[in-house]
Amino acid sequence: MSLEAIRYRRGSLSVLNQLLLPGQLRYEPVATVARAWEAIRAMEVRGAPAIALVGCLSLAVELATQPPEGDVEALEEFVGQRLDFLVTARPTAVNLRHEAQRLRHFTRQQAQSPGTSAHALRESIIQHIEELLEQDRAQNRQLGAHGAGHILQRVPDGPVTLLTHCNTGTLATAGYGTALGIVRALHAQGRLQRVFCTETRPYNQGGRLTAFELLHDRIPVTLIADSAAAAAMRERGVQAVVVGADRVAANGDTANKIGTYQLALAARHHGVPFYVAAPSSSCDLTLPSGSHIPIEERPAAELTHIQGCCLAPQAGIEVWNPAFDVTPHELITGGIVTELGVFDPRELRRAL
Amino acid sequence: MSLEAIRYRRGSLSVLNQLLLPGQLRYEPVATVARAWEAIRAMEVRGAPAIALVGCLSLAVELATQPPEGDVEALEEFVGQRLDFLVTARPTAVNLRHEAQRLRHFTRQQAQSPGTSAHALRESIIQHIEELLEQDRAQNRQLGAHGAGHILQRVPDGPVTLLTHCNTGTLATAGYGTALGIVRALHAQGRLQRVFCTETRPYNQGGRLTAFELLHDRIPVTLIADSAAAAAMRERGVQAVVVGADRVAANGDTANKIGTYQLALAARHHGVPFYVAAPSSSCDLTLPSGSHIPIEERPAAELTHIQGCCLAPQAGIEVWNPAFDVTPHELITGGIVTELGVFDPRELRRAL
Repeated sequence: MSLEAIRYRRGSLSVLNQLLLPGQLRYEPVATVARAWEAIRAMEVRGAPAIALVGCLSLAVELATQPPEGDVEALEEFVGQRLDFLVTARPTAVNLRHEAQRLRHFTRQQAQSPGTSAHALRESIIQHIEELLEQDRAQNRQLGAHGAGHILQRVPDGPVTLLTHCNTGTLATAGYGTALGIVRALHAQGRLQRVFCTETRPYNQGGRLTAFELLHDRIPVTLIADSAAAAAMRERGVQAVVVGADRVAANGDTANKIGTYQLALAARHHGVPFYVAAPSSSCDLTLPSGSHIPIEERPAAELTHIQGCCLAPQAGIEVWNPAFDVTPHELITGGIVTELGVFDPRELRRAL
Repeated sequence: MSLEAIRYRRGSLSVLNQLLLPGQLRYEPVATVARAWEAIRAMEVRGAPAIALVGCLSLAVELATQPPEGDVEALEEFVGQRLDFLVTARPTAVNLRHEAQRLRHFTRQQAQSPGTSAHALRESIIQHIEELLEQDRAQNRQLGAHGAGHILQRVPDGPVTLLTHCNTGTLATAGYGTALGIVRALHAQGRLQRVFCTETRPYNQGGRLTAFELLHDRIPVTLIADSAAAAAMRERGVQAVVVGADRVAANGDTANKIGTYQLALAARHHGVPFYVAAPSSSCDLTLPSGSHIPIEERPAAELTHIQGCCLAPQAGIEVWNPAFDVTPHELITGGIVTELGVFDPRELRRAL
């Protein structure tokens, strides 16, 4: 069985604390929206789809266990306030914003149905949220199949060697994964030779999470330093790069984990197709280009310390620690892989 | 006063254990060639020039404290054996091989002088080695001045923002540094705005050593993840990249710390001149191109563990951990900076 980032049943949510992996497998209870906000901010849970799910599910838990007093209007206001707060946890990924918007819209519609009670509205909101888990898994499988098919058209001979960055797998989603969904689909078809995974400093999501979850599922993986990616393309037969996305703008420009941009530059130099795996909920057609995507800067200590070990001078060192960078659409030479198909970045707006 | 990687006086050598920086400043005694070999292999001392110096100085210490019995011929054989052993410690950097070759040649010549005694030969070898320290410092100052002048010709306005990789400073040399010598020269002229230094995984020479030594000397430095280099070029006004070299082939292809190649790709994309700082002792005109340079692969544990902290699954993870990569000469768009001047890579062979 695959690892799970999120464990949910009606009234109860816990998340695998990804800060402790791979050393410890510990699930933390998340009983409130406030606790979910903290877990997202502190990166106990990360990955754009998983952030959206944990945010929404924490609201479902609050609604099930500590429902607000009052009428339909009070409930709608409660939901709106909670969602407004949740989306402030991290600025770059758009999925939680999208789900919040859909949920607000759904709540509005349900509240306006004639004769709706607060109890019925609460129940329908909880159900709407619970369906997101299965929707995410199903979309990831569709995305994985589209991506695998597209790569096999471009690399028709023999099994494929891929390179990926950060973690976009079961630990970043409700299951299966986005870019790692493509990896899983190729592996399931017997068409995956190996996947190189970058360590992904400064949070080491590649070394701690991707290597861990692929080993767990017996998928052939080789860990490399972020700095070794271009050398791996030149010397180790990498045939395609697949990465995830925190937000894709309307023109296809993509914000993803810091380092994605220089991977894309190296891929283009080597003629290696570069794919962004982005469910449609990661695409933000309201932004014309990547320059409009807010890029989160994280604290210096996340680069200078790891698990209490000091990796740089203790005092006085200036650090620039952007969590993401923007890859311009012209470098996304393989395509943007969604649950609806694989699109040239310039086709994305029309396709969605 | 600057930090020192190497402390030497006749009959006594100690090296700053760079594995313990920046947490601890501890000098380890190196009384024998065998101990120097271990210190180089384990990376207590690193940096191509410093490796050459520590190797040769350990021989000087043995000659001063435990001179071999016998005549001139026995002494020459002793020196040859020790040098043959030393050069096996690490394969990629060429400086120690060069110094060993020069020392063999010098020993041969001295041994053949009429009437030379074993005692006189021993004395002259020790002196020859001791002069290397001052020669290295003097060459670095010349190299730094040439590099600074060249950069200021290309970036004539205002102070300059640089980006560097790994550590090429006082801790990698007898003092002053190669690429960091250029940084120091610009800073001394009041023409340095700031230097971005990459963390330089997996050994973190950037975070642990470069940031440490520049802070120590009050040179403005900003630490970034290796993955943030291309973003820094695009968004933080980097005007030139300066790196060191472990070996430069006759056509200008350069082996240097893993990640140098992808920095060079990113620099070319951004139109940022890319400089390799390489004293002539790092240039190996016997190799026609970079494909002939042996590239050391280091143990997996150096990527998966740091200071006892585990950064990846403990068991079963496959790792590719090359210590260096080769940057093709056409990407070295600024030039190769030596103590003799700054050369287009294609001019290097003729110039040296």
